[in-house]
Amino acid sequence: MTIQKEQDDIFLPEGELLTLCYDFLTGHGLSPSQAQALAEILCKAQRDGCRSHGLQRLPGTIETMAHPAFNHTADPQPVELTPAITRIDADYGFSTLAARRGLPSLLANAKQIGIGVLAVNNGFHSTALWPVVEEIAENGFAALSMNPTHDWVAPAGGRRGALGTNPIAFAWPRTNHPPYVFDFATSAAARSDIALYRQEGRAIPEGWGLDAQGQPSTNPANVLAGAMLSFGGHKGAALATMIELIAGPFIGDRTSRGSAAFGEGASAAPCHGELFIAFNPAIMEASNRDAGFPQDNAEDLFTRITDQGAHLSGDRRYRARALSAKKGIAVPKALYEKILGMMAFSGPVK
Amino acid sequence: MTIQKEQDDIFLPEGELLTLCYDFLTGHGLSPSQAQALAEILCKAQRDGCRSHGLQRLPGTIETMAHPAFNHTADPQPVELTPAITRIDADYGFSTLAARRGLPSLLANAKQIGIGVLAVNNGFHSTALWPVVEEIAENGFAALSMNPTHDWVAPAGGRRGALGTNPIAFAWPRTNHPPYVFDFATSAAARSDIALYRQEGRAIPEGWGLDAQGQPSTNPANVLAGAMLSFGGHKGAALATMIELIAGPFIGDRTSRGSAAFGEGASAAPCHGELFIAFNPAIMEASNRDAGFPQDNAEDLFTRITDQGAHLSGDRRYRARALSAKKGIAVPKALYEKILGMMAFSGPVK
Repeated sequence: MTIQKEQDDIFLPEGELLTLCYDFLTGHGLSPSQAQALAEILCKAQRDGCRSHGLQRLPGTIETMAHPAFNHTADPQPVELTPAITRIDADYGFSTLAARRGLPSLLANAKQIGIGVLAVNNGFHSTALWPVVEEIAENGFAALSMNPTHDWVAPAGGRRGALGTNPIAFAWPRTNHPPYVFDFATSAAARSDIALYRQEGRAIPEGWGLDAQGQPSTNPANVLAGAMLSFGGHKGAALATMIELIAGPFIGDRTSRGSAAFGEGASAAPCHGELFIAFNPAIMEASNRDAGFPQDNAEDLFTRITDQGAHLSGDRRYRARALSAKKGIAVPKALYEKILGMMAFSGPVK
Repeated sequence: MTIQKEQDDIFLPEGELLTLCYDFLTGHGLSPSQAQALAEILCKAQRDGCRSHGLQRLPGTIETMAHPAFNHTADPQPVELTPAITRIDADYGFSTLAARRGLPSLLANAKQIGIGVLAVNNGFHSTALWPVVEEIAENGFAALSMNPTHDWVAPAGGRRGALGTNPIAFAWPRTNHPPYVFDFATSAAARSDIALYRQEGRAIPEGWGLDAQGQPSTNPANVLAGAMLSFGGHKGAALATMIELIAGPFIGDRTSRGSAAFGEGASAAPCHGELFIAFNPAIMEASNRDAGFPQDNAEDLFTRITDQGAHLSGDRRYRARALSAKKGIAVPKALYEKILGMMAFSGPVK
């Protein structure tokens, strides 16, 4: 996720930003419930300084909604397959509403039996995973989430795409702090970052991708036409393969190849499944006092990381959030005007 | 895991190797059931060409068994905490017997409700995770496993150890092939590899570690006295942090720091918890036929990886296994003689 510098930003209260997104989406035909869920998650990203997954994604939703299979009025309902597993079919709407509606069942199962799985199927997905895992952690559970994307990434030692950029997000509930949260793509760089280099006419760093002949390249256009590479060599590629499998076939959904095939010809966001797992630390916390109190051990770990001046994943977002609460949420003026110009109704934004 | 070249190897039938390990361990006071479980897993690693986790680990078991807390007669019994979660206390023996005894409950839960968690607590651990996840996959389930170790690894942007080398292993059941399996440390290199460079007087590659002052170093001795680094920069470090938390506090067990504190002064293998999760692909395979048949999608992914000549994790081990079945299991002659010299009884090996 690229965090861009402030430049010609305007600052909006959260409520106004939400209304802007909601009106944009409903104006383009999206149902109120879907628009609300998507608007919320885009605003959270913008609020937390994660601009690549914020309002910048709003114009592209028009292309996603133009996919022949897109369902503007999808009304996903969770189904409890087992005491541990909840499935919810996003029914070819955006995946955000499905994830939101599946959460209560996921949390109830994790509370009851220590672990819960939420499988979201058939959702168009273009938003960050961290707001969802953060919310699960705010309810007292650890959370893991992942999904395939499109098969842009070469396997280790390969020459062409077979794996997705496959993000993985994790959150851990803390007692006197907001949750520990990370969310990263298993590709060396985000596809949107490579596109940004192309736009700016700059060479990308070595190790990000291959050209169409399978040779290492620092030309962003050639890499976008060729294949991206995993982070961390064969280990990152192995992890991306795991994500293909447990956030694909395990939940009865597409791999990144299947998602790309489904999206062929359209400029829509990838349509695929999403896996969420919630872990309840309370189930085992009293079982092994030899090891000390679990939350104390977790806090000791965080302290040992921050005491040496090292970065704790998620803290940058919390700092941006605090700033947004004070100053309003920063939106690039150009993006704001672009969005206003693309609104599907006349008249001022409420 | 280092796969060394054949040099001055002898070749032994699997049964003979098992007996050698079993006799070695029982001769040093380990209970028959613990010795059997540990011998089996060491022999599997040796058989599959994964020598760093094979018989090479046998001499070191004497140091582990000398830890004041080590329990030679630990007799772990699984406890089903919930329909999804089984806990088994290794009771300060080796963790291998506990993992083995917990498997039936893990598999039954995954079969019944789609997912199962096995938490192994308080086990001395020095063996590879992949034989266990492979076995889970042979039963038809995907499997994920991880554990903390000792806090040798610096966090991203840090200068000293806070995280373990924290391995993660995964397996996926295939229909007409042995399972897809990976198992890797989240450190840039294995600690044993760095020790090997030191032994051979060679400089280690850049990116593997820091000296005691927190500066990048290619001197293996300085890095062993300083801090190791994660694979894949901040993403690998984030993953290692997740492993600390869900294979530590979530299962009521030690972080890598806690394990190091527990081991202080002894040359024992790290004592900590291990997390196993089994996923049942059958639960959701019929729920979303839009996406195609799950196992077909998984096989298509594997084909797209191997068709371009790329490496599929685990295949190297299967090739070594086939060779061992034909020629016997290769053991370096020097290691074999060292082990014979360390047997705790007189007389020939059965």
